Amino acid sequence: MSDTNAVRLDAQVRIVGTGLLGASIGLALRSQGIDVALADSSPSSVHLASDLGAGRPAHSDDSPKIIVVCVPPDVTADVIEAELKAFPDAVVTDVASVKLFPLHQLQARGVDITHYVGGHPLAGRERGGAISARGDLFLGRPWVVCRDEETPAWALALVEDLVLDLGAVPIEMTPEAHDEAVGLVSHVPQIVSSLMAKQLEGASDEAVRLAGQGVRDVTRIAASSPGLWIQILGANKDSIVGVLENLQKDLQNVTDALRDISAPGARKVIAEEMSAGNAGVARLPGKHGQNKRYAQIVVLIDDRPGQLAQLLTELGELNINLEDLRLEHAEGAQMGMVEFSVVPEVRETLVSELEKRNWRVA
Amino acid sequence: MSDTNAVRLDAQVRIVGTGLLGASIGLALRSQGIDVALADSSPSSVHLASDLGAGRPAHSDDSPKIIVVCVPPDVTADVIEAELKAFPDAVVTDVASVKLFPLHQLQARGVDITHYVGGHPLAGRERGGAISARGDLFLGRPWVVCRDEETPAWALALVEDLVLDLGAVPIEMTPEAHDEAVGLVSHVPQIVSSLMAKQLEGASDEAVRLAGQGVRDVTRIAASSPGLWIQILGANKDSIVGVLENLQKDLQNVTDALRDISAPGARKVIAEEMSAGNAGVARLPGKHGQNKRYAQIVVLIDDRPGQLAQLLTELGELNINLEDLRLEHAEGAQMGMVEFSVVPEVRETLVSELEKRNWRVA
Repeated sequence: MSDTNAVRLDAQVRIVGTGLLGASIGLALRSQGIDVALADSSPSSVHLASDLGAGRPAHSDDSPKIIVVCVPPDVTADVIEAELKAFPDAVVTDVASVKLFPLHQLQARGVDITHYVGGHPLAGRERGGAISARGDLFLGRPWVVCRDEETPAWALALVEDLVLDLGAVPIEMTPEAHDEAVGLVSHVPQIVSSLMAKQLEGASDEAVRLAGQGVRDVTRIAASSPGLWIQILGANKDSIVGVLENLQKDLQNVTDALRDISAPGARKVIAEEMSAGNAGVARLPGKHGQNKRYAQIVVLIDDRPGQLAQLLTELGELNINLEDLRLEHAEGAQMGMVEFSVVPEVRETLVSELEKRNWRVA
Repeated sequence: MSDTNAVRLDAQVRIVGTGLLGASIGLALRSQGIDVALADSSPSSVHLASDLGAGRPAHSDDSPKIIVVCVPPDVTADVIEAELKAFPDAVVTDVASVKLFPLHQLQARGVDITHYVGGHPLAGRERGGAISARGDLFLGRPWVVCRDEETPAWALALVEDLVLDLGAVPIEMTPEAHDEAVGLVSHVPQIVSSLMAKQLEGASDEAVRLAGQGVRDVTRIAASSPGLWIQILGANKDSIVGVLENLQKDLQNVTDALRDISAPGARKVIAEEMSAGNAGVARLPGKHGQNKRYAQIVVLIDDRPGQLAQLLTELGELNINLEDLRLEHAEGAQMGMVEFSVVPEVRETLVSELEKRNWRVA
């Protein structure tokens, strides 16, 4: 491993709440040799996480330097308060996906929050529980850290070291900016996905047979469990309701325009709403969708062991580094499609090299 | 190739409209040695498609047995009418994503539609034009065929042979059932995705940095071009408006419940809407999401050429056939994650074999 991957934390870590996030943090820290003490209101949950390799059950004589509270938003403030009291020398952080709600509760109770630094890893899975935990869950993901004016530099540094050790990217934000941001890029999309999926509930078998990748993508996160989401949405309603109201107006505009599509201006309304959607999706950074940093190449391969390895061996011989790769099987077809990304400069040469070697480039 | 892949069509095919779908059909048919004549209102578009290998420019003495109309919905009926008149012995089919709209136009004009069989391949890309065409675009995809009571069996058989030669799966439906189905599983999801994406237009850079896979998936198809979609939505408004009205009601319910989250029953409303979303997304068939036919394995590899090939060579040695594979790079990380699917029976043995060979299985 390079220097940038060296372990920063050199301290006992206590994790309270051994669900998906708590157990994933434990797995990642244990793989770096860090002592991890696990606590949970359910002893059997601690044992499961411990058996999975996420740490050891907490002892009464533990003295953690940093405590990560990984419990649902409704009880986050309670647990933070209890941990601050039980371990007055430790720094307490959390992973709740809302930041103002627990902060306001702590402030209202007059808790001394000098040693509390809010946190939120932008990572998760549709499947919950320690059993779905992965040590690599946070790799390359943003992890918001909310400092207070009162936060001592050493406490902030400790939390950021933890974040870096988990492979995530610390981003300092105010709790207000955080909650507004996740309302827009996480909570409202969840509602939209769930409500779209709801419309499919009574669909005919014939209709769902026609479903393609579009509706699958739009509704993927609708598989998330309602229990946790109700807490998140309720705790961040101030950031969400305004966005939902705008969405309602837009939906009303489109519905009205469609209902009376021959009216002057009706098509223009729809065009403007959809163009604004083009502009909105273009705001999302990164590889997904209309990424222009890489060129795509599709190769058709026979559906038998060794074909993909052969292709990749030859790509290795050509000294090509793949930026992204997907293998897909067409239902019932005797072939697979390999779609991969390369830097645009090499695309043309690579295609002709592959064709020279008798690969079928689509 | 096996018998099931033998070419069925033995006839000249004429394609009118050489955009993404027309050129993709041409590419697939040409690869099977079928004579493809290309026509388009734009001669340069014909030349581009022809240069790409989708067929040859149409001649005045062509005598196609089957004509595929691949033009936007607004002009589909006009072109079908003209083709039926120009080639009275041929079967005319189309690929418009609405089926009642062109049919009603033809009927209103008193066109003899005995030789017209409506069609709609459920396939596409966000990128349009012949330049994005792929001969494998239809592999394994549903392709709706709308027969009429008057349709002769030979005409239907010819269209179904075309569909099978393109690797797609013909599904017979009435135009009414088709339009209702695509309204629900394609057109409304497009509107939902576009309107969600619109909300991101004015987002702060800080907010979009926190975007994860959820919002990316929900908004992926919002990158589609408005021009064609306005025609599709307008032509299918009768199937769409009702669904949009239900969606509006649901959105209103959730917004009201959130605004007054402490009121009795408010959380129950949200729970019910989200649970209905769980049930809705579970209706979608296939691999995506809650697929239980395959087991997933994640292996961490170093980000350098040859690593993935090495892994796949070893999988080949172990005689493992991959059902699906994804390589992903974590932003800024010196490693990639390879996630692949195998039949569940081999999972356990495979993981221990990989670990024995020093692969890092997550």
